[in-house]
Order: sequence, then C-alpha cells, then structure tokens
Amino acid sequence: MSDTQASRIVLAKRPTGTPAQDCFRTETVALGEPADGQVLVKTRYLSVDPYMRGRMNDVKSYVPPYRLDEPISGGAICEVIASRASHLQPGDLVLTQTGWQTHALLAAEKVRKLDPVPQPVTLALGLLGMTGLTAYFGLIDICDPKPGETVVVSGAAGAVGMVVGQIGKILGCRVVGIAGSDAKNRYLTEELGFDAAVNYKSPTFYEDLKRACPDGVDVYFDNVGGPVTDAVMKRINDFARISVCGQISLYNLSEPDVGPRIAPILLTRKAKMQGFIVGDYHARFPEGMAQLSKWYNDGKLKSEETIIKGFDRTIEAFLGLFTGINTGKLIVEVE
Amino acid sequence: MSDTQASRIVLAKRPTGTPAQDCFRTETVALGEPADGQVLVKTRYLSVDPYMRGRMNDVKSYVPPYRLDEPISGGAICEVIASRASHLQPGDLVLTQTGWQTHALLAAEKVRKLDPVPQPVTLALGLLGMTGLTAYFGLIDICDPKPGETVVVSGAAGAVGMVVGQIGKILGCRVVGIAGSDAKNRYLTEELGFDAAVNYKSPTFYEDLKRACPDGVDVYFDNVGGPVTDAVMKRINDFARISVCGQISLYNLSEPDVGPRIAPILLTRKAKMQGFIVGDYHARFPEGMAQLSKWYNDGKLKSEETIIKGFDRTIEAFLGLFTGINTGKLIVEVE
Repeated sequence: MSDTQASRIVLAKRPTGTPAQDCFRTETVALGEPADGQVLVKTRYLSVDPYMRGRMNDVKSYVPPYRLDEPISGGAICEVIASRASHLQPGDLVLTQTGWQTHALLAAEKVRKLDPVPQPVTLALGLLGMTGLTAYFGLIDICDPKPGETVVVSGAAGAVGMVVGQIGKILGCRVVGIAGSDAKNRYLTEELGFDAAVNYKSPTFYEDLKRACPDGVDVYFDNVGGPVTDAVMKRINDFARISVCGQISLYNLSEPDVGPRIAPILLTRKAKMQGFIVGDYHARFPEGMAQLSKWYNDGKLKSEETIIKGFDRTIEAFLGLFTGINTGKLIVEVE
Repeated sequence: MSDTQASRIVLAKRPTGTPAQDCFRTETVALGEPADGQVLVKTRYLSVDPYMRGRMNDVKSYVPPYRLDEPISGGAICEVIASRASHLQPGDLVLTQTGWQTHALLAAEKVRKLDPVPQPVTLALGLLGMTGLTAYFGLIDICDPKPGETVVVSGAAGAVGMVVGQIGKILGCRVVGIAGSDAKNRYLTEELGFDAAVNYKSPTFYEDLKRACPDGVDVYFDNVGGPVTDAVMKRINDFARISVCGQISLYNLSEPDVGPRIAPILLTRKAKMQGFIVGDYHARFPEGMAQLSKWYNDGKLKSEETIIKGFDRTIEAFLGLFTGINTGKLIVEVE
C-alpha cells in the first residue's frame, strides 16, 4: 500500500490585524501506515471558529498559541481508513482535533468514535458538539436566566449565538438577537422564534436595541465585544449577568482597543461579567449533550449550518467568519 | 422649651467634576419638639463616604440621587436628646441616616439603638458598621478567596480597603495593597500585616505591582477603578474574581472615561468581575457583624480612623476623600 498524501494548512507567520493568505501555507506530506494503537483518518468536515484567530497570536490565552509551521488544529469529523486499534474499524466516523488537514495519523485515544452517528453528521461539530455545549454552559451556568427575563445575544446568527437564543426561548425568556444583516435577523425572528433582532450596522442600532428591550437587559451573552457590547451595557438592569464567550470584533485589531469603561456600570447595576471557555465544563459535557440532544429530538432546537465545499477554501471560510458570511455553524466539507 | 437650632448642609447644585464649595449651602432650621413616636437627636459623628459623590449626580444608580436643597444623607451616630418613643431615652446613642446635619427630628423606627455601644463608638460607622460589612461581603461572597491565593486591594488605606486586606490575611491569603503614599503603605505592611503594598503614584507602579504579585492576582477588590485597575487587570490569573466596590478615581470626571477594554481579559482568563452594594446583603448583616466583632475582639482586625473635628469642616472632609487625606475610615466629629 503506497503512502497517503495529506494536504495541510500550516501557520506560516503570525498575522497582524486581519490574517492574509500569506499567513498560511498549504503543504503536502506523505503519511505512512498506522503503527500499533494508531489510526489513519481522512477528514470529511472541519470546523472554522473565531477562537482560532486568538491562537494565531503569540500571547497568553486559555489555549496555547498555534506553533509556526504546524497545522492549524481544531475540530474535525474524520473517517477511519486504516486502523491498528481494535475498537476502530475502517469506515468509522470519529471526532478529532486534526483541524486543517485532509488526512492524519493519530493515536487512537485522541479520537472519539461517533456512536451513534448524528444525522446530519455535522451536528457533531455544531449543535451537538462544542458549539452547542458552549451555548448551553455559557448561558445556563453563568447567566442563570429566569422565565420572563430579557436575554440579549450578540453574534446571534453565528453558530453559538443561534443556540443561545433558542435555549433562552425554551427557558421562557424574551430573546433579542444582534446580528449584522436584516436577512439574518429575519431568520432569527421568523425561523428560530427570537422575539426581536436588531442590526448593529444600522444607523439607528442603539434606538432599535432600546425599543427591542423595553424592560432593559437581564442577561447578555456576548460573542462580539466592542461597540455592540458598549451599547448593550448601557441598557443592563440591576443584577444583570453577562457571559463573555467571544470578542470577535476585536480579534483582528493590531493594537488593544479602548472603549467606555464598564466597571462603573457593573458597580451601579450590581452586575456580573464573566468569561468562560467550554473546555472547563468537561466534566459536565454528558449533562449538556443529553439536554441538547433531547431538545433537538423534540424539535425545540434547530440547527443551521453554512457549509463551504472544498479543502482549498478553508482559509476563505475562516476569514468569512469576520465578515459574517455564515448563518449558523460554518463548516468546510473536504471533498 | 425653645426650638432646637439645627445646622444642615444641603445640595445647592449638582457638581460637574470635582465638587466645589458652592455646590453646598449650610442652613439653619428650627426643629420643634418630637411628636408621638419621634425622637430629637443631636449628631455626634457623621460619615463622609465616596459613594455620596455618585448620589450628587442626577443619574440612575443603586441609590436615588440626592435632591437639591435637601440635606446630604448618610450614616451618623447621634445622641437622643428628647424622645416620645418608649424604647429610646435621652442619652441613648443611635445609628441614623441623618447625614450632614447637627440635629434632626426622626421617626423612632428610622434609628437603631447602639446596644451595646461599641468602644470607641465610631466603630459603628466603620469596622463594625457599613464599612466592615462592605469589606466582608464583597471579599467573601464575591471573591471567595482561598488560602495561598494572592488578593490585591486598591484604595487599600481607605476605610473599606484596610478591612479587606486584613480579612484576606485572616483567610490565609497573600495580600497586596495599592495606596497613594509610601507612608500609607508602610502602615499597611508594618501595622496591618499586608504582605506588600505599592504606591500607584510611583513611576515604577506597574513594575512594583508585578514584583509584589509574583504568582499573579487571584482576587482583586477594586475601590478605585481607572488606570490602577487597568494595571491589575494585566496580571490576573485564570479564574480570577474581581469585586467592584468603588471607582473613586472616576467619580469626579465630568465625562465618562475610556480605557483599555477588559472583556477580552475576562474571556482569556475565564475571570469574573462583579459589582455589588452592601445593602443587598441586608439579610446576612447579623452573620457579618458577628464575624467582624469576633475578629476585632480577638485582636485579628484593627480599626483605623481619621477624625476631623467640627461640623463646619464636613465638606472639606468629604473632598479629602478624593485627595486621600484619610487613613482608614473618615469621620467628622460634630462638636
């Protein structure tokens, strides 16, 4: 059996500001046969996520930075094509962290077999994967929303935001989404049951937000940061809970941003703002998965995905996160 | 019996920036005899506190703004001089909210008899009053400090900060204070047992802070906000807890301040920042008072007060809070 040729996208240099194509390099490497305890996998779907931008910087964060000249790692659904691990067979679909590469040789303990395989399988990267769990724990554990409260979510048409809003509705809250196009906002209100959605690109954004939250904001799930968050902060109620999940509007700035100070607002409103990452809830993943699966199977949670076809469009897909090309989870299908 | 002449300081106009003398007016009013259920009191000691500055603005906050042409209310220790309430006798010392006035006619249910009377009585405004309770709940409830963790407190030589640091030591933490003079800092380390104290006015402040916190910052109790807090935020550890008690450095700004955004730090460090006011812990005051009294009686907590003599120096005392004239609780003795 001849060697497998794997394409992989490595970090060629660390971006300053918005990443350009020359920050990445596509390489071809030959992979041998799996050794004992290894599997050879072929990537079917890979995830592009905003947090990856942070890992391209060489700074302290909740995950170590990507290393230069190494592939961009991240969630991927792969098919086993050769195995020397007894519990994995060719044809098995597995969840891996191989990221932006078409094939990989992996230690069997580094992959998780999808059993049962969700339908569609891409749910394992989205609603029934890290995305859904992020929404679940960030909203429920940090924000503890009560029926009748107003929940605002930024990046509402993104992968996590869309799940957050739907969970808010399941819990009996008034849910207001913030997204960057009227089409996305129509989707949120008409298809996903959000009570209102406002377009942060509108010149009347702040007035629209006020009108959408007549009783103020009790819970804010923040995926974007920056001026959008500045606007929401002006409307928070006493004892508001703010979960900081992402700050995508700031990730491509080459210098740290300044903005209105928020500690005085937290003080006068007796509010809480808390950052989190889903990995810290690892011990509770079974709880989250069970609840998300139940809601999905009961038809209470809908999944929306934007699928880009072709491994060679991975970088384009990733950069599209920052211009908002996606509605819901953005996934690259490796053909 | 002739009418009692009461002096009182009213808010003459709302300050912009640092309050000037012409924001206040001292009036003399004649008080009659107490009606049934009332007491006539004479103020012995009154409290000047940073939060009062916020109430001078006409903005939404956790307490309603002061009204123009009405006395500045706040904590005061008074002596009953005439009573038509059976449980209060002339000579009784009571805790009131009469604030900046020498005498007042009050409904008996609005005063709390000091029984026993703490020694010195001014403890009822400081360590064994709102000040101590603020430190206690803000540190213990919001920050949950663990033995061995590093606790940083800003405004460390102020009324609340001084108690926070001492409680941190009782709980087995490494305690680092931030204050505005080397003399104050010597007091913190030499008299109160702080592990280190840094002067935010020093040109080497940030380096000093780094050196004082070699293992980073797990807990930050913030009384001041602004650039001091910006510096501390750079040093917080994963899962840090930040309690926002005050923002005195910002209270006299005429426009809202801007500064480095902190949500990205909260995100990458998975940290929590939470505002609070002590009044929301009302139901747990007995717990807090019992613990503070026990620590004080056991010699584990020391009280420090700066007492200014003379009602006519009240405004000067209040303004001194913003220039840091005080070490510990600042109290006006009404002669």
